[in-house]
Amino acid sequence: MAQLPLDSDDVVARALSEDLGAEGDVTSRASVPADLVAAARIEARAPGVLAGLPVAGHVFGAVDASLEFDPSAVDGERVTAGEAVARVRGRARSILAAERTALNVLTHLSGIATLTREFVEACEGTESVVLCTRKTLPGLRSLARYAVECGGGRLHRFGLHDGILLKDNHVALAGGVAEAVRRARAGGPHTLRVEVEVETLDQLREALGAGADAVLLDNADLDTVKRAVDLVGDRVPLEVSGGMTPERVREIAGLGRLLISVGRLTHSAPALDLALEIES
Amino acid sequence: MAQLPLDSDDVVARALSEDLGAEGDVTSRASVPADLVAAARIEARAPGVLAGLPVAGHVFGAVDASLEFDPSAVDGERVTAGEAVARVRGRARSILAAERTALNVLTHLSGIATLTREFVEACEGTESVVLCTRKTLPGLRSLARYAVECGGGRLHRFGLHDGILLKDNHVALAGGVAEAVRRARAGGPHTLRVEVEVETLDQLREALGAGADAVLLDNADLDTVKRAVDLVGDRVPLEVSGGMTPERVREIAGLGRLLISVGRLTHSAPALDLALEIES
Amino acid sequence: MAQLPLDSDDVVARALSEDLGAEGDVTSRASVPADLVAAARIEARAPGVLAGLPVAGHVFGAVDASLEFDPSAVDGERVTAGEAVARVRGRARSILAAERTALNVLTHLSGIATLTREFVEACEGTESVVLCTRKTLPGLRSLARYAVECGGGRLHRFGLHDGILLKDNHVALAGGVAEAVRRARAGGPHTLRVEVEVETLDQLREALGAGADAVLLDNADLDTVKRAVDLVGDRVPLEVSGGMTPERVREIAGLGRLLISVGRLTHSAPALDLALEIES
Amino acid sequence: MAQLPLDSDDVVARALSEDLGAEGDVTSRASVPADLVAAARIEARAPGVLAGLPVAGHVFGAVDASLEFDPSAVDGERVTAGEAVARVRGRARSILAAERTALNVLTHLSGIATLTREFVEACEGTESVVLCTRKTLPGLRSLARYAVECGGGRLHRFGLHDGILLKDNHVALAGGVAEAVRRARAGGPHTLRVEVEVETLDQLREALGAGADAVLLDNADLDTVKRAVDLVGDRVPLEVSGGMTPERVREIAGLGRLLISVGRLTHSAPALDLALEIES
Amino acid sequence: MAQLPLDSDDVVARALSEDLGAEGDVTSRASVPADLVAAARIEARAPGVLAGLPVAGHVFGAVDASLEFDPSAVDGERVTAGEAVARVRGRARSILAAERTALNVLTHLSGIATLTREFVEACEGTESVVLCTRKTLPGLRSLARYAVECGGGRLHRFGLHDGILLKDNHVALAGGVAEAVRRARAGGPHTLRVEVEVETLDQLREALGAGADAVLLDNADLDTVKRAVDLVGDRVPLEVSGGMTPERVREIAGLGRLLISVGRLTHSAPALDLALEIES
Amino acid sequence: MAQLPLDSDDVVARALSEDLGAEGDVTSRASVPADLVAAARIEARAPGVLAGLPVAGHVFGAVDASLEFDPSAVDGERVTAGEAVARVRGRARSILAAERTALNVLTHLSGIATLTREFVEACEGTESVVLCTRKTLPGLRSLARYAVECGGGRLHRFGLHDGILLKDNHVALAGGVAEAVRRARAGGPHTLRVEVEVETLDQLREALGAGADAVLLDNADLDTVKRAVDLVGDRVPLEVSGGMTPERVREIAGLGRLLISVGRLTHSAPALDLALEIES
Repeated sequence: MAQLPLDSDDVVARALSEDLGAEGDVTSRASVPADLVAAARIEARAPGVLAGLPVAGHVFGAVDASLEFDPSAVDGERVTAGEAVARVRGRARSILAAERTALNVLTHLSGIATLTREFVEACEGTESVVLCTRKTLPGLRSLARYAVECGGGRLHRFGLHDGILLKDNHVALAGGVAEAVRRARAGGPHTLRVEVEVETLDQLREALGAGADAVLLDNADLDTVKRAVDLVGDRVPLEVSGGMTPERVREIAGLGRLLISVGRLTHSAPALDLALEIES
Repeated sequence: MAQLPLDSDDVVARALSEDLGAEGDVTSRASVPADLVAAARIEARAPGVLAGLPVAGHVFGAVDASLEFDPSAVDGERVTAGEAVARVRGRARSILAAERTALNVLTHLSGIATLTREFVEACEGTESVVLCTRKTLPGLRSLARYAVECGGGRLHRFGLHDGILLKDNHVALAGGVAEAVRRARAGGPHTLRVEVEVETLDQLREALGAGADAVLLDNADLDTVKRAVDLVGDRVPLEVSGGMTPERVREIAGLGRLLISVGRLTHSAPALDLALEIES
Repeated sequence: MAQLPLDSDDVVARALSEDLGAEGDVTSRASVPADLVAAARIEARAPGVLAGLPVAGHVFGAVDASLEFDPSAVDGERVTAGEAVARVRGRARSILAAERTALNVLTHLSGIATLTREFVEACEGTESVVLCTRKTLPGLRSLARYAVECGGGRLHRFGLHDGILLKDNHVALAGGVAEAVRRARAGGPHTLRVEVEVETLDQLREALGAGADAVLLDNADLDTVKRAVDLVGDRVPLEVSGGMTPERVREIAGLGRLLISVGRLTHSAPALDLALEIES
Repeated sequence: MAQLPLDSDDVVARALSEDLGAEGDVTSRASVPADLVAAARIEARAPGVLAGLPVAGHVFGAVDASLEFDPSAVDGERVTAGEAVARVRGRARSILAAERTALNVLTHLSGIATLTREFVEACEGTESVVLCTRKTLPGLRSLARYAVECGGGRLHRFGLHDGILLKDNHVALAGGVAEAVRRARAGGPHTLRVEVEVETLDQLREALGAGADAVLLDNADLDTVKRAVDLVGDRVPLEVSGGMTPERVREIAGLGRLLISVGRLTHSAPALDLALEIES
Repeated sequence: MAQLPLDSDDVVARALSEDLGAEGDVTSRASVPADLVAAARIEARAPGVLAGLPVAGHVFGAVDASLEFDPSAVDGERVTAGEAVARVRGRARSILAAERTALNVLTHLSGIATLTREFVEACEGTESVVLCTRKTLPGLRSLARYAVECGGGRLHRFGLHDGILLKDNHVALAGGVAEAVRRARAGGPHTLRVEVEVETLDQLREALGAGADAVLLDNADLDTVKRAVDLVGDRVPLEVSGGMTPERVREIAGLGRLLISVGRLTHSAPALDLALEIES
Repeated sequence: MAQLPLDSDDVVARALSEDLGAEGDVTSRASVPADLVAAARIEARAPGVLAGLPVAGHVFGAVDASLEFDPSAVDGERVTAGEAVARVRGRARSILAAERTALNVLTHLSGIATLTREFVEACEGTESVVLCTRKTLPGLRSLARYAVECGGGRLHRFGLHDGILLKDNHVALAGGVAEAVRRARAGGPHTLRVEVEVETLDQLREALGAGADAVLLDNADLDTVKRAVDLVGDRVPLEVSGGMTPERVREIAGLGRLLISVGRLTHSAPALDLALEIES
């Protein structure tokens, strides 16, 4: 299973600090007795795939270490509308102070996982996989990638520092695909594969000839993808991208062993609706 | 006009740190000469409302203070597909290192502004306004609110610390609308209005009777909203919320001087497509 | 009771870092054996009101988690000269390393609480309350407000961000009380009351006419306060300020249900004398 | 002249963050036009000694780098009631947003300098000097010491890490003055003098015999101080402390070349009254 | 040329904070007039290769932005004993406050560059290159790698996150070289090459058979390296490591196109002797 | 025994962040099952003196709080080649993720302790002691001093802020040894001794005459040291420095009660070879 990112507590702290400021929850302090104990239920209001439940638990714990958080589902699991995914019990004021921050994390990450799952299912029965990209929201990359994994997606490089991907702009500035690949092979660390973006089959041949370790075929039509798969064979990983929808993935996934990268997973996933209800 | 949030440079620093890690852009370093100078254009690929262009400028400046960033549009402005919104000129490596982070901020915030504008336009010709909520993504609340303002939306409280909003859970725990309002008036700071969420007209009357300074009517049908407007008159601000779409806003906005709060603006806005092209 | 502020551990960490630097307590290390265990008593040397005892406990715990800190009084309690308020037991070196930092916090906050109590008692038998202001020392606002609450005082807005108070400078720049109030009602968030500072009864009438939600009457004589109380009635909260001393508060508090704000509580309270004695 | 402490910008940032939160000055934003330019004067409302004027300048600069801050006095200078000490000019909103934070720093530090000057003047015509102690407010030690220097006072060790002072508790735990001094001379770094607190002349003799490099005589009466001065001569620095008032310092300062340490300078100095007035 | 690491200013700030504490340079403040201007020369006392001169410049600038720092050499350049590498001019106190921190950075990094150059020269006339490892000192990895590049060395992966290297422990836990490689190819990101450590030629064959993208041959004798070179040919990069000295590198470098990794470059390089002399 | 520095957890966090980045250990995640439990042994590969074993333990704990770390040696202890110094047991992935960072700290600090011990042993049978200097690596001063203490060395001042040492540059700028000492005695805090660097016996006499509390004799030959010892007697501490090797220390240590300061301990100590082996 996916591993919670190293920075998730920092994200929680930042989010809580936004909501609580220096004064905390003035509403609850004014209206709810300090010693009142309550129990609450987090439940899904729409079907989807969970991601971030342990992070939500960290939010409650960061607000008040004495709150008891009991998840009844795990990240990566499908949930139905109306299903309870966790219960939390303890000081009512603490539950209310943590509620929105916990839900903001959980609904956002579950939204990513849910959208990812839709793309992953479009690959079912094929050898292709779905990848996320670097199109993530500021400060949330690790958590977004975690959510993608919960949805069944795979990861591309984390950032500019841990992978070589020669994009159209690099190719243009280097004066062609082959030259860009040659430079990267010579100048890059021996630990990184050299992947290059191509738009035509000619460029693809050029890339392979120059020793590219992976190729990204951007915005190609179905037929071009097919011929690219034939050209590349098992030699190197072949990634495809550009305007992917579940429908398009269904058409393309069966053509070969493709890495299908989808920016939308992390830049445009709508939140999954989840809410907290006080039970007693 | 909206003011850039105080923490936007922190967000930029965090986002850059994600993408650059300790090693920076290994691809460009391996494939693009250190002294190569280039010019690039940021252009919209879809119509929408801009937000975050100065923040994108800060990203380029944070990567390399010698880059020249020249915006040709301003936040809050409508753009059409194909329209250039800014040019940047300087070391090619620096432009490429900043590109994705700059676009990630810009496409996300412009997505929020674009969605907000759609709701705002649904209020046109009425006295109602659109508000965002606390349903924001971790660490991005200030910027999201800025984008909402760029889209023409108005702001609700920032967090739990700077506004009193007695929600259903508070009302339940306090034992009723009137009691919750009384407690908040007695225990809260005299600088904050006391707003309370109600679901029925009876509760609304109870709220007004107890001295609520504002009322939030959640999930009400058109007829209930109409009667609530009559009941409240000009006495206190009346907020409505729950499952708002532009269509529903069009029906509701003309009923009175409403504050229409929409969580979707900040938790589910899809990114606006913008891209960077090297020109030379 | 007042709640310990969210940032009190940060304040403790900063204060300890000042005193300990990188090397810690060189005196104790050179003169006291590492394994020597001791017990100490914190006692008041003057009568007053305690505030900050749990924070002092955090100081000892931050220096050495194995120290046992046993308070025998609670914040908000009156203490007499010679009274022990806590005992601490454990490694002698650790107690000595924490002593000054713990006392610095405790004597300062108790000084604020003690001064506040003096003003609060001047209101006894009336409906008026004492408020602190934003005149606090850098980095200590939350703790100072906590101490004010321990003394029985009430809180004004935390800062510029969570309350609207149109002061003389705003009124002058806006061109009058009524215009300032109108602008704030139109432009401010609906969650904040609009309070305005006035100096004359005419301005007070203007404020009420323009819809001010609260009024601050600055530097008024007894007679003016009396007439202001009559004018305002129960319509909005009436705050008075300016050169408050316990004597003046005694004269003024009975005139109505006043919010009496006193800058001195947080900018000029002398420390309450407390000391630590090694007992064995 | 005293040098601004290395951490004064951090203190400014912390104080501004308290006052501005995430939203900044909502009052000014709602009531003062964004482009309105104003000029303001900071003036003393009571006589005293200035400290912190450059720090106040940093506050204005941190809020808005385009503000012009023109001091007409320097730290350490005496000011009279009604005297202008600085002018600031620029965006009205920025001046108002910085006002309280700038004044909070300036009035607090000037309060320390003013009280220090009173003690320093009590030493006039003698060889004795006034020292501050480690009894400072959390996070403000460097600035407080700076203010003491502005008032003409001298500095003791900064913290536990940069000086050896064997206090009564160390002496008790070590089993006597001589043994404590011997341990500190053997175990402490050769770069630090060994100072020891004594309460009697016998202890003083014991300290000198054991090789103390400095002696602190606590809570002694006039006659004991006189005899201590005779005993110590020029051999080592002699510090006196305990319940110092300007009157007591006047009696004691002429008795020798004393270091007179006064906790009150930094733990109980009342603020000096200064205010900001918009001039146009 | 090598690029200064992104975190070098943080390292400078940390180092200055160690040396200056809260009080700064008490010696210079007590003995050197505040307005005395001086000029100083940094000179090598032993022959070597420079690294870190711009970082030393940052140290002077961080202490006092008005200091003029004029380097007369560049990083990567050979210097001889007695040669001046930079001059600095400005306030004498500032130069002295920065001196030790600037030299500590410069002598350490130049020590690494000098040792690296020795290994690099042992490869002269061959196709082999020298690489550093992850055996770096805490918090100094980026700067150490920079110094290695100044010495002419090449870089291995930065950390565990940006490269796959299956070491003996992974192989043991995975149950063999082939299985470890297979798992890494299946489970690792497609952007990273899969490198595996082997100790025998049989393991080497197993690695190649399983599709390893690079091989590290640890602690092999000359003959084994020779045969490994024959086996691997141009198929994948071949790295060798283990007890490398310049002598051993001279024997081994000519055997093929080897990546020779040397932990000693970054964990045991002695400082290069450089000193600062006040000239006037 | 030496005390772990206050900042050692910060150093650990920084070092781990370098190695783990945002993604952690991709190799282990791809090749080692998540639930595999292993035991490992840290053993010395060369004889030396241990320092940093508890810090290594903190590294394992910071990566995974469930790892069990059992040291079988203590800091300051001599170890022989092949000797196990600790065992660690728990999730295999966690052990591997922490391995290099733990070893980097341990081998570096043990290298310092080992070199220090060599110098300390050269003093055996004499009254002289070995001191470290401020020639430390950026960010590692506290830990380096700790390692020196583990090796049996003594500490000089921590930084510029907690000791007065007038070096040749101060003497030159002040216009002579006597004047420099006089200024420092007058202007420095009474808590710090005034140490001055001299190069000749004449300067030494001048220093004593001016009231220096300690003298540093730099780069003197054996005969000069001898005569300096006679001159100084027991009056003040006498420090010697300059090009110290164990051989030279053996010659010099018996001449008196000298403080022998050695920069090499902290700027050029080679790492002590220690490694981690998976046992099962």
